[in-house]
Amino acid sequence: MAVRASREYLERVFEETKNWGRWGADDERGALNWITPARRAAAAARVRDGHVVSCALELPTAPAPGNPNPAQHMMIAAGDARDAVMHGVETSLDYVGVACHGMSVSHVDALCHVFVDGRMYNGFDASEVKSIGALRNSIMAARDGVVGRGVLLDVPRLRGALWLELGEAISPDELAAAERAQGVEVGEGDILLVATGRDARRARFGPWSPEEGLAGLHPSCIPWLHARRIAVLGSDGVSDPLPANETPGWPIPIHQCCLVAMGVHLLDNLELGRLAAACAERRRYEFLFSMGPLRIEGGTGSAVNPLAIL
Amino acid sequence: MAVRASREYLERVFEETKNWGRWGADDERGALNWITPARRAAAAARVRDGHVVSCALELPTAPAPGNPNPAQHMMIAAGDARDAVMHGVETSLDYVGVACHGMSVSHVDALCHVFVDGRMYNGFDASEVKSIGALRNSIMAARDGVVGRGVLLDVPRLRGALWLELGEAISPDELAAAERAQGVEVGEGDILLVATGRDARRARFGPWSPEEGLAGLHPSCIPWLHARRIAVLGSDGVSDPLPANETPGWPIPIHQCCLVAMGVHLLDNLELGRLAAACAERRRYEFLFSMGPLRIEGGTGSAVNPLAIL
Amino acid sequence: MAVRASREYLERVFEETKNWGRWGADDERGALNWITPARRAAAAARVRDGHVVSCALELPTAPAPGNPNPAQHMMIAAGDARDAVMHGVETSLDYVGVACHGMSVSHVDALCHVFVDGRMYNGFDASEVKSIGALRNSIMAARDGVVGRGVLLDVPRLRGALWLELGEAISPDELAAAERAQGVEVGEGDILLVATGRDARRARFGPWSPEEGLAGLHPSCIPWLHARRIAVLGSDGVSDPLPANETPGWPIPIHQCCLVAMGVHLLDNLELGRLAAACAERRRYEFLFSMGPLRIEGGTGSAVNPLAIL
Amino acid sequence: MAVRASREYLERVFEETKNWGRWGADDERGALNWITPARRAAAAARVRDGHVVSCALELPTAPAPGNPNPAQHMMIAAGDARDAVMHGVETSLDYVGVACHGMSVSHVDALCHVFVDGRMYNGFDASEVKSIGALRNSIMAARDGVVGRGVLLDVPRLRGALWLELGEAISPDELAAAERAQGVEVGEGDILLVATGRDARRARFGPWSPEEGLAGLHPSCIPWLHARRIAVLGSDGVSDPLPANETPGWPIPIHQCCLVAMGVHLLDNLELGRLAAACAERRRYEFLFSMGPLRIEGGTGSAVNPLAIL
Repeated sequence: MAVRASREYLERVFEETKNWGRWGADDERGALNWITPARRAAAAARVRDGHVVSCALELPTAPAPGNPNPAQHMMIAAGDARDAVMHGVETSLDYVGVACHGMSVSHVDALCHVFVDGRMYNGFDASEVKSIGALRNSIMAARDGVVGRGVLLDVPRLRGALWLELGEAISPDELAAAERAQGVEVGEGDILLVATGRDARRARFGPWSPEEGLAGLHPSCIPWLHARRIAVLGSDGVSDPLPANETPGWPIPIHQCCLVAMGVHLLDNLELGRLAAACAERRRYEFLFSMGPLRIEGGTGSAVNPLAIL
Repeated sequence: MAVRASREYLERVFEETKNWGRWGADDERGALNWITPARRAAAAARVRDGHVVSCALELPTAPAPGNPNPAQHMMIAAGDARDAVMHGVETSLDYVGVACHGMSVSHVDALCHVFVDGRMYNGFDASEVKSIGALRNSIMAARDGVVGRGVLLDVPRLRGALWLELGEAISPDELAAAERAQGVEVGEGDILLVATGRDARRARFGPWSPEEGLAGLHPSCIPWLHARRIAVLGSDGVSDPLPANETPGWPIPIHQCCLVAMGVHLLDNLELGRLAAACAERRRYEFLFSMGPLRIEGGTGSAVNPLAIL
Repeated sequence: MAVRASREYLERVFEETKNWGRWGADDERGALNWITPARRAAAAARVRDGHVVSCALELPTAPAPGNPNPAQHMMIAAGDARDAVMHGVETSLDYVGVACHGMSVSHVDALCHVFVDGRMYNGFDASEVKSIGALRNSIMAARDGVVGRGVLLDVPRLRGALWLELGEAISPDELAAAERAQGVEVGEGDILLVATGRDARRARFGPWSPEEGLAGLHPSCIPWLHARRIAVLGSDGVSDPLPANETPGWPIPIHQCCLVAMGVHLLDNLELGRLAAACAERRRYEFLFSMGPLRIEGGTGSAVNPLAIL
Repeated sequence: MAVRASREYLERVFEETKNWGRWGADDERGALNWITPARRAAAAARVRDGHVVSCALELPTAPAPGNPNPAQHMMIAAGDARDAVMHGVETSLDYVGVACHGMSVSHVDALCHVFVDGRMYNGFDASEVKSIGALRNSIMAARDGVVGRGVLLDVPRLRGALWLELGEAISPDELAAAERAQGVEVGEGDILLVATGRDARRARFGPWSPEEGLAGLHPSCIPWLHARRIAVLGSDGVSDPLPANETPGWPIPIHQCCLVAMGVHLLDNLELGRLAAACAERRRYEFLFSMGPLRIEGGTGSAVNPLAIL
């Protein structure tokens, strides 16, 4: 289906899915509030064989299409400098630097990452995100981790395809159909992961620039996501289809409505091929999801290595 | 007790606790092999109320005693640049850089982080750790996360103190006494966390340079750790007491024997005060431990935010 | 003399030394406009023996007192990775990162580095310095280099001392006395360097934190600097004495009046010991000064290696 | 002419142009030794109108073709954080990071940047360039700056073209013809800059990846460069034509013979369009050249802003 949603529709959806004030005027955790300890314990109780799958890509340190600002990994001391070390310890040391929102970095978006008309989730002003860091809605809202029930919806599998084509959009009906086909239902407090087959396509054709296109969720999914009261949304793409929605002011409605209206943290550029295979093998698409964003005061997100425990 | 162990003792312990070859000549996972899916599932099954506690410090970006190489957090675009963004998205972006082995960064040491006589775990040569990254024993050995049963031993509580004094060493008898007092037993495949009260002391007196001292495990604990077949060892300090052991060639025997001989990954500079309080409240010192190191090819470790799910 | 200047005095001096509008409402070069090609050619013509002296410190990459945010120098590929390189070239590569305004980095301050009451040189608003870079008064104002007549005033030599004590302030009378003693006169378009002996003191006692103190120019020098129409002011300290002036709002009047009122670029943390020795040997305190700041769009300054050609 | 030189030719040229031992077994300055103070003074004396031209590009911080590892410029504090600053100073701060050998960064190569058969200039072993920095032939050899007589050879002008086509090679006869046409002769201790019109081509067509091609000097120029005893060689490209020479082991003979055999520092990715225009206007192709590489201990080069004073 074509990715096109009118300004009127999006403005209305944005208003209707707003969770501003729902958890208090000072709340910065947004839909993470849907994850209660009881839900977390229940999710742990449903772990079966204990297999664990990482949902992250390797940190992309080499320049490549779609990776215009590579992460940095540099050694400070390697094995050729054993005799140079302090205190008589033979050691190796390194440094990692990353602008996490890059298009090939598996990362979580903090709620301060996107503004709509100069506002963040819960109505905070964009000016609260300063050059010295975000004073509101930073990634510290997730400082105690994100642990809960995860659900994978494998859309290529539903379609009988290896991957969705670039730019394709998933409809809410397809999400519901995937639920039925997989025997799982997305519910309150879930971490929802939507696979589009980006990994399989990359394995086949090599990396491409996301500007050429990525599959994602059609904006009409937004009310569905809101109704289900998901806590977090993740994808192997960026949840929004690319190229961006052409409606002025609404280029990435999923980001804009999830982060700003609902307060739903987003996970971009996950690796979901391994998880999809593990779920298919078990015919079971729920798992214990666990992720520990770095505790970055004022941070707009974090590179992460989210884990699914089956 | 005084921290002093002779060269003869340490050389013998090093040899006796070697796991080289135990999991094959090419193994790079070391004692992580002790964590089986079954043990992981069992640990998940023992989650009770679903409370989750982060074991990480805030990423230390401000210069401070004990933080000579601060991590970097810099904004790339903040709320004052809303109109400068690409594709019409109002966004904020940032960058994080960290040399993870710094003395105030909560991090995991890869098995390539320390050498003894030019060798790493499983006998690999130090020259395999090159200026372009570690070709062997990088943090990629833990790329699928570390999830298993965690056990906290709270030594200050055992002693009836708020913290251990700088430089103090914990004996194996104390570890065993803590087990008994807490009603828990450290076993095969466990992630063992040892609290020394560093957080409480910091809260009281402010930060200090670890060169002034840190409490840790006496080298005589090494055979005990080996016998228990732990998978990972963590501490709010660096496991080794500081100032370093004076025996030439053996400044930090816990690091040297755990990383190199046993293949036990180490967690340094954890925040264990919150976890200790949560455990004490529940009178229960085991939990599901979950940590996702960044997938850094060739990396010597990773900043992490490990989680304890109670 | 005590470093104390009243708010009234400083507000008056600030107003009286303002060059706002002197070179047009859009000017961002400030007192660099005093350096005409003719003056530059005249300075070159006075070069005598062709000896060249660097006025920069080594880039401070090691943590030290007074260097809380060390610069970064990391190898990307060293000699141990000759066989890993691209295109068959045996090569070594590295990375340098620096927050140039650190207290041990030889650097030039752009005119956007300091604000007074929210204003920069020529009246531009502080809001023009955004999280994405300075839109006004960036270091690009000096993108074509700073080349002209340099003059060194060696105050310790005038006093018969090796260095000035921490916190000591130089009076305008002393500057004039140094001119007479050295047989040189500071004039329009000159790059004025003032030595306080910081290098000699560091060589004797090791590094200290500038928070303990640095010698510098008393605020009463400001009208003198303005009258002489200098183009640039540099020092082995930071030109302002430290600890900072206690008058609220006026902690570093030299910075505030030079950068903001006059539009005089500042050079901080120079190494002037070598230059002082070379000048003393020749009994000649003028030279051709040459410095090429990196062309950093939006930059607040640049690490530099300024050269004196005698 | 085609860029192809046989292994036999290049091995012979390499041997015949070696300056190893010429300035002592410990020398690390190489052909910089040709620049005597007297030559420097003479160059200064020939400055005429005092016009100064920068030979550097803007630091390339935006991803672009030919810039796979962009430099980093990030604000630490901008105008939106005036009230957050220390000591009551209203200030802006930033950070710059650069891997200088990138293909769009104006930089100087230290003599440790390239090896031939595991050797650097003066016979030092590649293993002296360690993960902790270069112990030999670092950029510190140029720590006191490079100041001397500069000569520009404008090859597009000689050919009556705006630029040389990608991959084209300049012959030694053309260098000599350019000398005659421009009325200048390259001599001992000169800093030789060779323009290929890269800037004009970029202005016309936008940036391209150097992998597509760059014009440069044919390997047969190497004996000519050696005979003229130049101190430094610079270009708006990388002196070597690209795509690289196909002879195995000799992909970039100019780099290999200049850096390793002769000890001639190289300047890559200069901006020579402005200088060419200034020289043409004056019909004068010599100038005082001045460049201050950052004093990076162990560094393989430095980003620079070299200046030509006419």
